Amino acid sequence: MARQSPDLAAAMREIGAATEAALDRLLPRPEGAIARLDEAMRYACLGGGKRLRAVLCVASADLFGVPRTQSLRAAAAIEMLHAYSLAHDDLPCMDDDDMRRGRPSLHRAFDEAMAVLAGDALQTQAFAVLADAETHAEAEVRLALVAGLAQASGARGMVGGQVIDIAAEQRSAAGQPLDMAEISHLQALKTGALIRFSAEAGAILGRAGSAERSALRDYAADLGLAFQIADDILDREGSAEELGKAVGKDAAAGKATFVGLLGLEGARARAAELTSSAQARLASFGPAAGILQALAEFVITRRS
Amino acid sequence: MARQSPDLAAAMREIGAATEAALDRLLPRPEGAIARLDEAMRYACLGGGKRLRAVLCVASADLFGVPRTQSLRAAAAIEMLHAYSLAHDDLPCMDDDDMRRGRPSLHRAFDEAMAVLAGDALQTQAFAVLADAETHAEAEVRLALVAGLAQASGARGMVGGQVIDIAAEQRSAAGQPLDMAEISHLQALKTGALIRFSAEAGAILGRAGSAERSALRDYAADLGLAFQIADDILDREGSAEELGKAVGKDAAAGKATFVGLLGLEGARARAAELTSSAQARLASFGPAAGILQALAEFVITRRS
Repeated sequence: MARQSPDLAAAMREIGAATEAALDRLLPRPEGAIARLDEAMRYACLGGGKRLRAVLCVASADLFGVPRTQSLRAAAAIEMLHAYSLAHDDLPCMDDDDMRRGRPSLHRAFDEAMAVLAGDALQTQAFAVLADAETHAEAEVRLALVAGLAQASGARGMVGGQVIDIAAEQRSAAGQPLDMAEISHLQALKTGALIRFSAEAGAILGRAGSAERSALRDYAADLGLAFQIADDILDREGSAEELGKAVGKDAAAGKATFVGLLGLEGARARAAELTSSAQARLASFGPAAGILQALAEFVITRRS
Repeated sequence: MARQSPDLAAAMREIGAATEAALDRLLPRPEGAIARLDEAMRYACLGGGKRLRAVLCVASADLFGVPRTQSLRAAAAIEMLHAYSLAHDDLPCMDDDDMRRGRPSLHRAFDEAMAVLAGDALQTQAFAVLADAETHAEAEVRLALVAGLAQASGARGMVGGQVIDIAAEQRSAAGQPLDMAEISHLQALKTGALIRFSAEAGAILGRAGSAERSALRDYAADLGLAFQIADDILDREGSAEELGKAVGKDAAAGKATFVGLLGLEGARARAAELTSSAQARLASFGPAAGILQALAEFVITRRS
């Protein structure tokens, strides 16, 4: 976590801890015949990650004075959705990853069936949390959150992106890796859609106008792409120890990456451009958006 | 489909065809890089099944004069949720079933990764459909549907039931099959929760009072248990050809079944009692509930 401003570091720690507490409250307690499922859901969600999506959601909601009791519920729902996607992506029939966040991935810590089922139940729970009256008093707001999360994570969002990613590996194996437009489209769906929604969720909770909602969404789109490019750079340069997962896997598989297409320097320059663009989208919010400004810098300077 | 009253047969055909058409409209059209996912989602949902849940939802909604345009959307969402659960249950790491509805199961027709992902996206799409304003003009009604579906299908509903079912197989292998209370609890979660919600969804759409809502919910609870007992009887007595899937598998695995616990005659008697009980719950609706009355009879007399 190099070169991170003290304010951002404190905000990330604070929101991270509060999100962890919210997840602990909102996930079922291990109980009776289903205890192992509850434990698997908790293992997948608790005790790890940068909580980028939670920070985006809460810091965006803060701009509109949304009570943290509300924004942390939305943040927890988004983190549940994200955790389910990681659990399923790590399965042997998908990316077959044994490690995640520095410890065994869900299907290694439990088993494959439990990884599928815990992921399934986490998706369900994310929608249950958003639909609950405690998330916002107005039904229309909760419905906008439910619809937004569904849009971001379904066939034309995150899951669609994973399908393109799997097809891309097959194309790489056949010597036809994705080009720049295709890999950008992949990212916009696979990770970008949920990252965009994370910032937008804060605006929805704050009943923000369409200009503010679009600004936050566009900011997160730039940030999400910068994040992915930085991921490719880390995959090339980082160590497995720092990242808590295998490195160099994409390049070894001949998969198209932003580094492969742009070169290391080109990728760094593009990520920096996107960070500037993301920051410029926040202009109308002034100094109140300091955390979001710093977050855009953080995603390209982080070491893990 | 023996001994089915002409009215019920016609209603099931009509609602089945209308649900099929609604699913066709509400599922993404195969398009671009994601076409294979769209095709897998369609394969999982279209062209098969008795549409028991759709019939429960639509026939319950009919009691309150809910427009079919609305009840068919809810029915389609429930059928998407059901189809996702079948796709995941059939996976090699779960029940490892190669056949479903007389044709290859989803992971055999496509592959495992696609079966996981199409299932995931079907769950998402079910919530998206319920949250959409076309399902009902009132936001509170849509939210009640979203919350109800989540409750029925999550860790304390369908997914929890599947976890208990897997644990039950391990217990059977260790010579400790479930007793009657445990197997009834399993059924109430694994298949019962979504069946209960199917009838309740009709009442929610119709803004029914709590007495009517409870009556439909209790009716469906009885019907769902009768359905499962009938399934166990068919698994013992039916042919693979009629059922479109392997038979005798549960008994061969030493799994506890209602037939195993009650004997064939005992199971038949219990299913008949439950059918009578289900029918009695509908008394206050009078002749308007004729289809639901006949449906309770159907679930224990069907041959597949």
